[in-house]
Amino acid sequence: MKFGTAIGIIISCVGIAMGATMEGTNVAVVLNAPAILIVLVGTLGATIAACGLPVHLRLPKLYKKAIMPDDLDLVGRVNEIVGYAEKARRDGLLALDEAVKEIKDPFTQKGIQLVVDGTDPDLVAAVLDAENDAMNKRHAAGRAPFMQAGALAPTMGIVGTVFGLVNVMNNLNQPSTLGPLIAAAFLATLMGVGSANVVFLPIANRLKELSQAELHFREMTLEGILGIQAGDNPRVIAEKLMAYVPPGERPTPEQQEAAKAAAQKQAA
Amino acid sequence: MKFGTAIGIIISCVGIAMGATMEGTNVAVVLNAPAILIVLVGTLGATIAACGLPVHLRLPKLYKKAIMPDDLDLVGRVNEIVGYAEKARRDGLLALDEAVKEIKDPFTQKGIQLVVDGTDPDLVAAVLDAENDAMNKRHAAGRAPFMQAGALAPTMGIVGTVFGLVNVMNNLNQPSTLGPLIAAAFLATLMGVGSANVVFLPIANRLKELSQAELHFREMTLEGILGIQAGDNPRVIAEKLMAYVPPGERPTPEQQEAAKAAAQKQAA
Amino acid sequence: MKFGTAIGIIISCVGIAMGATMEGTNVAVVLNAPAILIVLVGTLGATIAACGLPVHLRLPKLYKKAIMPDDLDLVGRVNEIVGYAEKARRDGLLALDEAVKEIKDPFTQKGIQLVVDGTDPDLVAAVLDAENDAMNKRHAAGRAPFMQAGALAPTMGIVGTVFGLVNVMNNLNQPSTLGPLIAAAFLATLMGVGSANVVFLPIANRLKELSQAELHFREMTLEGILGIQAGDNPRVIAEKLMAYVPPGERPTPEQQEAAKAAAQKQAA
Amino acid sequence: MKFGTAIGIIISCVGIAMGATMEGTNVAVVLNAPAILIVLVGTLGATIAACGLPVHLRLPKLYKKAIMPDDLDLVGRVNEIVGYAEKARRDGLLALDEAVKEIKDPFTQKGIQLVVDGTDPDLVAAVLDAENDAMNKRHAAGRAPFMQAGALAPTMGIVGTVFGLVNVMNNLNQPSTLGPLIAAAFLATLMGVGSANVVFLPIANRLKELSQAELHFREMTLEGILGIQAGDNPRVIAEKLMAYVPPGERPTPEQQEAAKAAAQKQAA
Amino acid sequence: MKFGTAIGIIISCVGIAMGATMEGTNVAVVLNAPAILIVLVGTLGATIAACGLPVHLRLPKLYKKAIMPDDLDLVGRVNEIVGYAEKARRDGLLALDEAVKEIKDPFTQKGIQLVVDGTDPDLVAAVLDAENDAMNKRHAAGRAPFMQAGALAPTMGIVGTVFGLVNVMNNLNQPSTLGPLIAAAFLATLMGVGSANVVFLPIANRLKELSQAELHFREMTLEGILGIQAGDNPRVIAEKLMAYVPPGERPTPEQQEAAKAAAQKQAA
Repeated sequence: MKFGTAIGIIISCVGIAMGATMEGTNVAVVLNAPAILIVLVGTLGATIAACGLPVHLRLPKLYKKAIMPDDLDLVGRVNEIVGYAEKARRDGLLALDEAVKEIKDPFTQKGIQLVVDGTDPDLVAAVLDAENDAMNKRHAAGRAPFMQAGALAPTMGIVGTVFGLVNVMNNLNQPSTLGPLIAAAFLATLMGVGSANVVFLPIANRLKELSQAELHFREMTLEGILGIQAGDNPRVIAEKLMAYVPPGERPTPEQQEAAKAAAQKQAA
Repeated sequence: MKFGTAIGIIISCVGIAMGATMEGTNVAVVLNAPAILIVLVGTLGATIAACGLPVHLRLPKLYKKAIMPDDLDLVGRVNEIVGYAEKARRDGLLALDEAVKEIKDPFTQKGIQLVVDGTDPDLVAAVLDAENDAMNKRHAAGRAPFMQAGALAPTMGIVGTVFGLVNVMNNLNQPSTLGPLIAAAFLATLMGVGSANVVFLPIANRLKELSQAELHFREMTLEGILGIQAGDNPRVIAEKLMAYVPPGERPTPEQQEAAKAAAQKQAA
Repeated sequence: MKFGTAIGIIISCVGIAMGATMEGTNVAVVLNAPAILIVLVGTLGATIAACGLPVHLRLPKLYKKAIMPDDLDLVGRVNEIVGYAEKARRDGLLALDEAVKEIKDPFTQKGIQLVVDGTDPDLVAAVLDAENDAMNKRHAAGRAPFMQAGALAPTMGIVGTVFGLVNVMNNLNQPSTLGPLIAAAFLATLMGVGSANVVFLPIANRLKELSQAELHFREMTLEGILGIQAGDNPRVIAEKLMAYVPPGERPTPEQQEAAKAAAQKQAA
Repeated sequence: MKFGTAIGIIISCVGIAMGATMEGTNVAVVLNAPAILIVLVGTLGATIAACGLPVHLRLPKLYKKAIMPDDLDLVGRVNEIVGYAEKARRDGLLALDEAVKEIKDPFTQKGIQLVVDGTDPDLVAAVLDAENDAMNKRHAAGRAPFMQAGALAPTMGIVGTVFGLVNVMNNLNQPSTLGPLIAAAFLATLMGVGSANVVFLPIANRLKELSQAELHFREMTLEGILGIQAGDNPRVIAEKLMAYVPPGERPTPEQQEAAKAAAQKQAA
Repeated sequence: MKFGTAIGIIISCVGIAMGATMEGTNVAVVLNAPAILIVLVGTLGATIAACGLPVHLRLPKLYKKAIMPDDLDLVGRVNEIVGYAEKARRDGLLALDEAVKEIKDPFTQKGIQLVVDGTDPDLVAAVLDAENDAMNKRHAAGRAPFMQAGALAPTMGIVGTVFGLVNVMNNLNQPSTLGPLIAAAFLATLMGVGSANVVFLPIANRLKELSQAELHFREMTLEGILGIQAGDNPRVIAEKLMAYVPPGERPTPEQQEAAKAAAQKQAA
């Protein structure tokens, strides 16, 4: 289900808003300009200081990725790779040369290209490992602002609330204004704790899981490419790669036959 | 004892309810709709945002697994594997071919099948390791919502309580309503801290321990399968595998003899 | 000093009780039935849910072990192993066969027995490593309830206090009862924070340290056994094992001579 | 963007100050001498106690580095190294001897010098790894005071606030002074939480990221130097090193040709 | 600068005391007997329970070590080892036999002695690694009470404050005594948070850094000793060891020449 993150944030906001309304609070009070300035702008500044500006310019793209991730079709990839393995076994490695140009995934394409070029197997593994390693670091850098924001927003909320309480304490001689002033002070805490737990931390965690899934996907691909280069039996490659697929998603033998036939046609 | 998690949650709830009743609080107040909406729905939405929807559809199954885990019979598995080892030594590896179909545990079955097929030992280890690695990742993904909920629920409780206090502060001019309003605000904290510590975190921890136990179980099985393939003496295999069994559960030599005899009959 | 944990818990309780009495509080108030029910029974239930029932049945044994640990005599073990090494060098490995039956420590006994049986050195190391690994996991499982209780008890204390405050807030119209009600509510926090920090966490840490010490002890033993099997010079074995002994406890050369002579007699 | 950290801290301060002003608080109150003494001097003393004096004398340099980091030009470095590789392939390793003196980066210079000297490849890798390892430790020691300050400042703020509240409680009989006294007490919390989250922690995190980027940069350089020594094809070296460059920054084939040509001229 | 820890603790205390005095609090109030009993004795008891008694008997020595650490002269050690390497190369390994007795550092002495004795290189590395490993464990055990105290003291402070508040609540009918009673209750929090952050945690961190520095120092020494045994060129050994020295402290070539000459004289 692609839209899990968006759906989850909406469910969470609706639940909180309904509960607060039932308690008698007007939910619109959270749209309080001082609280927003202190918590959201204060947090944004601190994450820029912590993680640098460039990564923040990529944030909208990352938000979108968290909310609409690419589909990682493990079984499809297994079938694709087994198809190349069969072609290579039948017609030789060089027969993959034409197929390479039509591979959509750049990682698979780079790997097969290296194999076709007759690169040393250790070097193929080293180059593709370095790609994965670098992707991992890029992903970690990309989700760092969300993790920082998740840790910083609640404390920015406390900063806002304490500022508000300082104001309250200096107005103790006007008791009638105290209630609304304290209420306003609390809004910064609400904004800080709420934004961290409903938005920042879930998105950070989501990006981490997506990154791990992509790495898992690429490790499977890498294992398949090395198997093709080693000239392994396509059946053995399929067996090895299928271990990366959750049991529930593994095709039945019949499905597998059908998929193989389709992949062979496509690779032929 | 299979029902430890259910029993534990009940003991914990009963203890808290009795203590609260003795203090003079009516325990039924925790069934407060706003608190439930803010804490439980808010947390559910945030865990969906953090972990994706599909894993949440498997939660009821995981709850059941935490509460009624499969029994992992270490000694039984040792005897089963030693039985195969003896059969293989006596009649050759191929003699296991019939036995394979009757193995109930899919992991053991896959391993013995690979051995019978004459797969290269390194490949057997690699395929089974990949299975374990993938199981590990699946388990970690499965318990992630419980861990997230354990971390998020108390802060959702704070969100609910602060919302309630904002409401209180805006009603300071009606002192007679303040007590019940503050009490209601606190219920969200109770719900958040209580659900996290009595339900979510214990279940997350329980699932983690069950996962580790299953991994331990499979590592023992893998070691046994590799021993069978290497043609090790069944007595040596038994010695190695017995190190995985806690000393208190290890059979006495007499029990071992009896068990072996039984296993031989079954495998024959 | 064997009784450190018991002495420490007593010192801590006495210090707190004296301080509280000097402040004017009657210490006996902590024996408050609702607080005990909520915190101790609530925590016990949650740890049972988190760690399963069986480990809780072994808790009294673990309490006793934390309070009265076995003595690990590093120098004595070095001398014992060097004695076996000398006997093996003088009379051959088989000469250890009689000595094996009289070894008190089961780990050393199993190791020497494997050596005497002519087991392959890699297998000896593998079996004994598996023993240590399994012991490590058993110890971690054994101290898990204490660690969980240390983390859960303070939050159970908060649950108890918030329940109490809810009660207070619903009785705001009877101001004279508020003081004692609030005081009673705080007792749950006291019980939770106190039990975690004076009892649960120190015992968890103590069990962890004892486990590490035992592992260190066994690693030294394993190194010695492998040295005996390899036919190393007893002087070299002594040199290697002595590195595991803290410098302050290492015997002077004279002491070492005397100890060796004694050990030789015993092993002869 | 070089000035990210300075810009971020300014944005954060401006956001908080604007929000607080809108709430009606005079922002200048945070410049409260007791709060500054307790929080900033107290924290400074504690970090000196924790990390030693010498590292504190280098702090101004580290502040400057966090705010104006060196530019790490990955593509430029790849081209530089490929240039040396081509020169070495064309004219032999010794031809690099003149080029060495003009290398600006000391790490690259040391590596190429070792290669030109005919040092054993394992030793080249060991010496350069030791350099990186030591740099890593130096960086960790350098950012330790910022991390300690980030953890200690909020608790120093609590110390200041509790001191203030003790003062308040001893003046309960003068109700008119309580408001300003409590407000002043809160300023220490503000100072502690604010300085930690807006300054110390972001700078600590920034220094960590810069350190990781530099390590990544040097690992790429090391891989290139070892490739030159092994006599690898410059095209293969370029392929391997390009894996360290984020895909978005990788030059198009045309750019690469142009860059290579330029680098060859420079290295010639 | 040797006295960093003492200076830091003094700066921190002076800063806090001056700030508190400016706020109008009499700093002497922190010398409150109940607070000291609850926090310091309570914490001491809990750390004894957690870490055992013996390590507490060594605490005064560790305090002294944290406050006046040994000087680790990296460049001096490099020169010393290079001196031995040159002597060994000139006159043979056995020529070091006399020099051994005059080596002050026991670790270097043990290493060189093993080399002179003609011990197998792998065994030299294994024995010295075991020494370092054991030192590491000893250091970790030595700083454990400080880390435990840093974690426990604030919660003991909360225990003390809650005890005080229980007392306050039972005296609500005597309003004039409430202020001082609450103030006294807060003192336990002050004592707990202050002692943890100004004394225990900084010392724990300091001991950790000193331990890491000593390990780094010994690893460099070990690498040098293995180089001497392998008969490496003294210039190569110097190059390798210099990588362990921070760039800023590395001697210029002239200084190095002078130092070498001096070391040769001393070793001759």
